[in-house]
Amino acid sequence: MKQSRAETLAEVLKICNEAKSATKIISKLDEASKNRILMQVKNAIIVNKNQILKANKIDLENAHKNGLESSKIDRLLMDENKINNIVNSIDEIINLPDPVGKISYNVTRPNGLNIRRITTPIGVLLAIYESRPNVTADIASLAIKSGNVVILRSGSESINSSKILADIFKKVLAENNLPSGAVSFCNNPNRELIKELLKMDKFIDVVIPRGGKSLILAIAKHTRIPLFKHLDGNCHTYIHEDADFEKARKILFNAKMRRVGICGATESVLVDKKVARKILPILIDDLINAGCEVRGDNLSRQIDKRVKKANKKDYYQEYLDKILSLKVVNDINEAIDHIAKFGSSHTESIVTENSESAQKFLSEVDSAIVMHNASTQFADGGEFGLGAEVGISTGRLHARGPVGLEQLTTYKYQVVAECAIRK
Amino acid sequence: MKQSRAETLAEVLKICNEAKSATKIISKLDEASKNRILMQVKNAIIVNKNQILKANKIDLENAHKNGLESSKIDRLLMDENKINNIVNSIDEIINLPDPVGKISYNVTRPNGLNIRRITTPIGVLLAIYESRPNVTADIASLAIKSGNVVILRSGSESINSSKILADIFKKVLAENNLPSGAVSFCNNPNRELIKELLKMDKFIDVVIPRGGKSLILAIAKHTRIPLFKHLDGNCHTYIHEDADFEKARKILFNAKMRRVGICGATESVLVDKKVARKILPILIDDLINAGCEVRGDNLSRQIDKRVKKANKKDYYQEYLDKILSLKVVNDINEAIDHIAKFGSSHTESIVTENSESAQKFLSEVDSAIVMHNASTQFADGGEFGLGAEVGISTGRLHARGPVGLEQLTTYKYQVVAECAIRK
Repeated sequence: MKQSRAETLAEVLKICNEAKSATKIISKLDEASKNRILMQVKNAIIVNKNQILKANKIDLENAHKNGLESSKIDRLLMDENKINNIVNSIDEIINLPDPVGKISYNVTRPNGLNIRRITTPIGVLLAIYESRPNVTADIASLAIKSGNVVILRSGSESINSSKILADIFKKVLAENNLPSGAVSFCNNPNRELIKELLKMDKFIDVVIPRGGKSLILAIAKHTRIPLFKHLDGNCHTYIHEDADFEKARKILFNAKMRRVGICGATESVLVDKKVARKILPILIDDLINAGCEVRGDNLSRQIDKRVKKANKKDYYQEYLDKILSLKVVNDINEAIDHIAKFGSSHTESIVTENSESAQKFLSEVDSAIVMHNASTQFADGGEFGLGAEVGISTGRLHARGPVGLEQLTTYKYQVVAECAIRK
Repeated sequence: MKQSRAETLAEVLKICNEAKSATKIISKLDEASKNRILMQVKNAIIVNKNQILKANKIDLENAHKNGLESSKIDRLLMDENKINNIVNSIDEIINLPDPVGKISYNVTRPNGLNIRRITTPIGVLLAIYESRPNVTADIASLAIKSGNVVILRSGSESINSSKILADIFKKVLAENNLPSGAVSFCNNPNRELIKELLKMDKFIDVVIPRGGKSLILAIAKHTRIPLFKHLDGNCHTYIHEDADFEKARKILFNAKMRRVGICGATESVLVDKKVARKILPILIDDLINAGCEVRGDNLSRQIDKRVKKANKKDYYQEYLDKILSLKVVNDINEAIDHIAKFGSSHTESIVTENSESAQKFLSEVDSAIVMHNASTQFADGGEFGLGAEVGISTGRLHARGPVGLEQLTTYKYQVVAECAIRK
């Protein structure tokens, strides 16, 4: 039955009010309490493993019935192993330090004021994501640990799997006499509901979209709430003229082929003209033998006939597939300009033994993550020692790169005096 | 002559392209170069003092001709003293440390990666402001010191005064072989131009509006670019039951009356019921003797007949005038709830000798700045030891409270390895 606009709005307001009022309590929880809740959630997930798998089976049956593509079914599928991953991820979050209450500025001024800047939770997060049920547990756990409240809206394909996970959080919260509105789950497939949620800037402080570029652009279009947006990872590896060939070979192959479907995968390789004739055939050998198609400019096609013709669109493309774009560049400046023009400001790497050129690349390439002699596939909060993340932001403000516990906080100034009057 | 849409768009694109291409050079300047430029700007302002005053005279004549209200004419007026203030403010910015290149995270990971998080300029700022010409020099100086490029759009009332100041920046930049597009000044009163500028999210990274709430709301409506927005400063002073009466008297009087027109001025006082009968008449005496109108709830009007009736709208009001709203509250919880409901999350202060209550207030009041026994008029980056600011943000992300040099930066991750391949 179709919901009326008034009914949708009432439902959205109920969710938002419950979330907002929960912030008062959740934001004040101390580290031990937050860890205790997460520990109980973890245990409940282990105890309810079979129920979770049963719920996932319903989603899988629906997915098959609706002819969902196999890559999406892969993401949707849960098994013992994936449940273990969720449990391990919660353990990892338990072991991360509490990001709230950290003091980043503390001075006593001549005017008699003691001024401290102290981290606080952001408030209410709205997470909108697609078919991976583990995102439900990851984001809810990060939200609790950072003292935030979260409204979860999963893709309709994974609604049963996600709901049972969210229900576990809600049940544990309730058992601890905490507001279960701290983890809200939208169990309503109505698309109007998202639109109304995205208007609730009086209640929701930040939107965290996780999914394809089209989903994120659609969300950005419908909201004025700040977004931690990760649009695309059109990552580059640049083989500089002073590259060590063996390193270049290993790094590029890993950067492209380790997992082609992740945002840190290299989508475009730039090769310096001075070494292109020597190194390109070797690099292309490796890639083509592994089933990767290479699309390049004219010069690269003169050097190696196996390279297919690239058009300009290719250089903007995040393939997430066994396809790589290739361009021969005159020098490091052209490489930097190419990245500025075609890149998505996610992650780029230079392969070189020349430390001056490396420094130039690291300082002038304007991306969230810039690397020297490393595979772009390392773009990950865990690999960086930052712990679990809700995503990697290609935006510039507040959160750039991995969005972990620290980025889920803001700060306030606490000012203490005896009796301070301004002159 | 009216500009066609295509002409407006062409002008906006020219400004944006010049700004964007200037970022490459400005973002790389070292501290000494940035300080040298600011020093030259400062000297040029001193040398061209008479020309600046002459330009200001034109603005003033137009203002009188157009019947501009006197408070706006006050803001517009420049004299020797105001020029000295601009010069001193540039000096202060020269003396502040360079915010770019600060490392806030530096680890070497088991995977062989050295990971550093390092501050960088944001990129292109768009400042939209009203009649105060000094804002031109303040924001341009802060932009240069933080390695950012700025597009300035002043109110039409101050266009001559602001333009001559912006021209000094442009001239100094050009004399140093730097792109004068690093400080753009929109000398076009066409309102369509702002609308087009606000669409340029591919070029502009953040919008800094300075002006009244209606200006800021109008800007927010027309853009998807992040804003450092300062909507209003509906600041509260709460007199707790354990307040020292003499302190309460001094602090409230200063918080309300020192300067009524600034955002940190207290607009609403909350008085604990247990002490209201004793303290209210004294507080009200001081205020009424200084020409301040007090608008309160029924209880306060029973205690003191001079209190006029407040309606609900009063509690939402940023008067910026000699008017104060007043409410008697049952306890600290009611005070905190009242602030959450009616406040603007700018600055609130508790007056008490009870440190437990003070701590509760500082932790539970969700404002950018929370104070204990201090006048809300201290809400100022300079007073906090943070240096000059482009404004005070009531937003929650990236910049909360004073927006100074530090908030005009973002960061990137620089990752260095020998030859790192992800498993």
